[in-house]
Amino acid sequence: MFFQIIDILGTVAFAISGVLVAMHKRMDLFGVLIIAFVTAVGGGTLRDMLIGQTPVSWMTNMTYVYVIFGATIFAILLKDKINYLRTSLFLFDTIGIGLYTVVGIEKGIQADLHPIICIALGTMTACFGGVIRDMLCNEIPVIFRKEIYATACILGGLTYFLLREFMTDTNFVFVIAGLIVIVVRLLAVKLKISLPSLYRDK
Amino acid sequence: MFFQIIDILGTVAFAISGVLVAMHKRMDLFGVLIIAFVTAVGGGTLRDMLIGQTPVSWMTNMTYVYVIFGATIFAILLKDKINYLRTSLFLFDTIGIGLYTVVGIEKGIQADLHPIICIALGTMTACFGGVIRDMLCNEIPVIFRKEIYATACILGGLTYFLLREFMTDTNFVFVIAGLIVIVVRLLAVKLKISLPSLYRDK
Amino acid sequence: MFFQIIDILGTVAFAISGVLVAMHKRMDLFGVLIIAFVTAVGGGTLRDMLIGQTPVSWMTNMTYVYVIFGATIFAILLKDKINYLRTSLFLFDTIGIGLYTVVGIEKGIQADLHPIICIALGTMTACFGGVIRDMLCNEIPVIFRKEIYATACILGGLTYFLLREFMTDTNFVFVIAGLIVIVVRLLAVKLKISLPSLYRDK
Repeated sequence: MFFQIIDILGTVAFAISGVLVAMHKRMDLFGVLIIAFVTAVGGGTLRDMLIGQTPVSWMTNMTYVYVIFGATIFAILLKDKINYLRTSLFLFDTIGIGLYTVVGIEKGIQADLHPIICIALGTMTACFGGVIRDMLCNEIPVIFRKEIYATACILGGLTYFLLREFMTDTNFVFVIAGLIVIVVRLLAVKLKISLPSLYRDK
Repeated sequence: MFFQIIDILGTVAFAISGVLVAMHKRMDLFGVLIIAFVTAVGGGTLRDMLIGQTPVSWMTNMTYVYVIFGATIFAILLKDKINYLRTSLFLFDTIGIGLYTVVGIEKGIQADLHPIICIALGTMTACFGGVIRDMLCNEIPVIFRKEIYATACILGGLTYFLLREFMTDTNFVFVIAGLIVIVVRLLAVKLKISLPSLYRDK
Repeated sequence: MFFQIIDILGTVAFAISGVLVAMHKRMDLFGVLIIAFVTAVGGGTLRDMLIGQTPVSWMTNMTYVYVIFGATIFAILLKDKINYLRTSLFLFDTIGIGLYTVVGIEKGIQADLHPIICIALGTMTACFGGVIRDMLCNEIPVIFRKEIYATACILGGLTYFLLREFMTDTNFVFVIAGLIVIVVRLLAVKLKISLPSLYRDK
């Protein structure tokens, strides 16, 4: 129940981020809706397709569909006021990636995959909706360029497998790993930390 | 038999639309062929991958492969004269999306999915070949910006499930829903109707 | 064992080509790593998803993950000197596509698909990592525009099925078809051969 609320808040934040990018590109209603949808469920969809868990998850759980529709309409109607919600949306988004990372990891464990692959699946679940959104909007994915986003997911994933060595309470491991993602992301944004530059002349 | 002819005409129209976009981008023969292929079968391929129906359909039915090859060579050879065919191609294309929408919906029903998901699958079958074509050509997908295209598919899909409540003759439902897609699309183009703008200053 | 070494060298060459493109786009460490990964395994991943062989192959064989990590770090550290390796990398890359083409074809045969589809799968395995790389980097895929790359794979594929008619030693067929890909690619680059232009005014 608690996780379901986080899941919905995360989906809302992802969908609204899609709406904002799509409207910036002056798409029509259909385009905006598709981008909202892809941003919200794209990461999990890619994960499910890669591990062969089909039909992919949003096809068998209508909650996502309704939440994304609602969030899209809300964001279009209130687009001039959405700036006031920026902090809340950032928080939802951050909490969302914490949850999705761990959910993705556990799907990998269920499919009996190597821990590194599980961490990759978790990161993909949290981050690749945004990657597909940016591809459809004809942009180089923003998380490939500047944001500490995936790094937070990877650190959370490493924590997950580290804790799992010592603890048997899987719920506890789940929560702590998710919190690590959230804290790293918040600190990185707060302290303006980014990955070390690979380029000398920047 | 009748549906097969429509299917082939639709495939031809989709493939030729791919050839034209690819040649506009000055691709070489291989690029033109791939874009023709992706435009023609991309929507159905994505649908099959999402619901887990693999190998995807064009891999087990060589008709598509031959038709797309033929249409591509035809379009390349006659590229200066293809303008005279514009009306026919538009008609084939429109009839094609009518058929593909309903085919996609019925695949969703066979997979026991919710009507909204089925309509999404139908729309995807008809429209996402063009979306993938535009991504490969480094453009924002045209159907996200201005054309009433997906909307016609969605209205046809709603009609399908509405009629199904009252009628048992599934062939009749199939045909009427497909015709709705075709008529909405034709009217929208004829009357220059588009989705209401989301932007004030346009 | 011999094939495994080729496989690893090919993976290294593909990953480094990804690193170079990603660094040219000034991506951060995470972006560079993802592009290296996608370039190296993208073609095989798409193939596996299309024929429904999931989890896709790199998820169950950690060698690829380690090789790609290593190649990426190597390429980032030595980025100023990588020009000296250009010839070796070109050779590895060419040998790699020879191997991947035939591997892809044999996966298609195992899945009982038509020879044309098998050749398409082989070509995809060898070429579509680069296509996805270019899409993520917001470029029109380079192999759609100028390089004889896919053509070499297709010719190798045709050779494969031709030889198979007359020979029973499948290892021999495997090696010859792979060599054809390599030789055609080397000759095309050496003699600056490209596909005939489709455009009069070029």
